[in-house]
Amino acid sequence: MSAGRLIGVGVGPGDPELMTLKATRALGEADVIAHFAKAGNSSHARTIAAPHICANAAELPLYYPVTTELPKCSNGYRDALRDFYDDAAAKIAAHLEAGRVVAVICEGDPLFYGSYMHLHARLASRFSTEIVAGVTGMSGCWSAAGMPIAQGDDVFTVLPATLPEDELARRLREADAAVVMKVGRHLPKLRRALETSGRLPRAIYVERGTMADAKMIPLAAKPGDDAPYFAVVLVPGWEHRP
Amino acid sequence: MSAGRLIGVGVGPGDPELMTLKATRALGEADVIAHFAKAGNSSHARTIAAPHICANAAELPLYYPVTTELPKCSNGYRDALRDFYDDAAAKIAAHLEAGRVVAVICEGDPLFYGSYMHLHARLASRFSTEIVAGVTGMSGCWSAAGMPIAQGDDVFTVLPATLPEDELARRLREADAAVVMKVGRHLPKLRRALETSGRLPRAIYVERGTMADAKMIPLAAKPGDDAPYFAVVLVPGWEHRP
Repeated sequence: MSAGRLIGVGVGPGDPELMTLKATRALGEADVIAHFAKAGNSSHARTIAAPHICANAAELPLYYPVTTELPKCSNGYRDALRDFYDDAAAKIAAHLEAGRVVAVICEGDPLFYGSYMHLHARLASRFSTEIVAGVTGMSGCWSAAGMPIAQGDDVFTVLPATLPEDELARRLREADAAVVMKVGRHLPKLRRALETSGRLPRAIYVERGTMADAKMIPLAAKPGDDAPYFAVVLVPGWEHRP
Repeated sequence: MSAGRLIGVGVGPGDPELMTLKATRALGEADVIAHFAKAGNSSHARTIAAPHICANAAELPLYYPVTTELPKCSNGYRDALRDFYDDAAAKIAAHLEAGRVVAVICEGDPLFYGSYMHLHARLASRFSTEIVAGVTGMSGCWSAAGMPIAQGDDVFTVLPATLPEDELARRLREADAAVVMKVGRHLPKLRRALETSGRLPRAIYVERGTMADAKMIPLAAKPGDDAPYFAVVLVPGWEHRP
């Protein structure tokens, strides 16, 4: 192993104060700070971490390939993403081989549904690697809503809204508490699945959960079925709470 | 509402550096710092937060009732706990009515399987309340293990090991990724359920996950079936990782 070190740094759900002390220290130690962003956009993680990025650290923005013209299930989309992660890992490997400390900043927690994982899978066997756990986006949402999510022997489940309607309904019925991610255009289907499973009265719709302009309402009271991709629906458990 | 304010403060999974900036600020603002502990023990949350507790803050330790002589499913156990939480909430309410800021420090995240929730349910409708989200114990575990847990459209589930064996096996089979909590004396049953569900080869056994003396081994390689109550088993998803 070279003297370089890779650090996956969770910067939390959005509020810069929800960064950990360890994350701020890691940013101070890094020679290179890498962050993912959509082409033409700035990185959300970079915006969150901005006050803690030293002026003398090099920055390595990693821009996702523009793949909107390709259907998500296509081989072309998968190949473009694979090539992108291969290329990003190679750029980081070059810094690590030169003995540098590279921090990859990530919204939420690095190993929980994060893009950093694609770099980790490519680099962790070759380089010294450290993970700085972060507050997840979902914790940020239920905390901002002041809503206890799971207690005692509750079964808690995270579901992507991309699942088929009957599978969503079955899994929602079987869980005591749930978070549904990637809501977007799947909201009408999700609403039906929540109704079928008897969970609609408990479901809370959340947009931009940990931002100053957060929007949270009972899903049953939400007019219309338009929703951004990153909206989530919380279904709290702890049914027999006092 | 009185001028008092209740803050549920997540202090993270164990490493004091995994506290958030917001948690340290909340501790600095608190007139009273409350923490749960077993009778005769010091609070884990207090140990984690110790460097950030001001000498002039009052402390309110909340000792769980000694209930070891009562079976967990008994009415006596439930009543003793209910009375304990009622009493703890009343003590905190008195401080809030006097206009004080009361921070209740909690391991992990306050609204995710935490004792704080019992106070929140009793007080949030009467007093101004704020939640400081924290890094969960499970994030601390998979980060310390450097193990990507869930990616893409994975279904992720948290299960208590108290479930019956066939239900554990079925739920493990249906989840892409899982965390099993409260392992303790349920380990032989859990091991069989992981075997039945085909998940045993991926399962990692974790004790004291975010402590300096953490123990992590593939469950299949763990000799014996002794395990402390707070041991967890991680079953990583992302099956088609590169």
